[in-house]
Amino acid sequence: MPNHSMQLDRVFRALADPTRRAVLQRLSRGPAAVTALAGRFNMALPSFSQHLDVLERCGLVRSRKSGRVRTCRLAPRRMKSAERWLTRQRTLWERRLDQLDRYLLELKKGSPS
Amino acid sequence: MPNHSMQLDRVFRALADPTRRAVLQRLSRGPAAVTALAGRFNMALPSFSQHLDVLERCGLVRSRKSGRVRTCRLAPRRMKSAERWLTRQRTLWERRLDQLDRYLLELKKGSPS
Repeated sequence: MPNHSMQLDRVFRALADPTRRAVLQRLSRGPAAVTALAGRFNMALPSFSQHLDVLERCGLVRSRKSGRVRTCRLAPRRMKSAERWLTRQRTLWERRLDQLDRYLLELKKGSPS
Repeated sequence: MPNHSMQLDRVFRALADPTRRAVLQRLSRGPAAVTALAGRFNMALPSFSQHLDVLERCGLVRSRKSGRVRTCRLAPRRMKSAERWLTRQRTLWERRLDQLDRYLLELKKGSPS
């Protein structure tokens, strides 16, 4: 399986969880310290850290430690590749529908009235 | 958990598999009979049917039986909702970066040369 496909697997799996999506939604508004982020969710810090791990391992989030504070930020490149994959399938499908429309219109024009 | 969030969970989970993504890629080019679709993948029909089930249950694919032939087609509404979710987070993040850029530029203009 090509590398890009494995990356998409991981990114989509990471996105398939409401807590992880909520973290990304929060980070889309700017970087945040892990403790501040965790405080927004009603779960134990170890469970929350596991969610952050999943987001970091698939490349949707980056974190940096400065002193005792770890700060997270969105890393949108992987998000963009997932978005691109979806857009591509949708536009191909829409183009096909347009072609079908044009074809039906031509048929109608050509038919005896 | 709101209904929309559960739908996103299911859609992203369905997308986190290379076989299911390959099925969607094929269907983006037009409808296909289940047997013809299954023939493209090197797996037993029951396993393949499970993948199709996942895609149908989350609303990414619709199928219709006519006589003995079941035909599948892409149902892009759910795909679009996943795409919209990703686009929204990315554009928020980009807007934030733009604001930061403008702020830094203002600071630079204001500083003594």
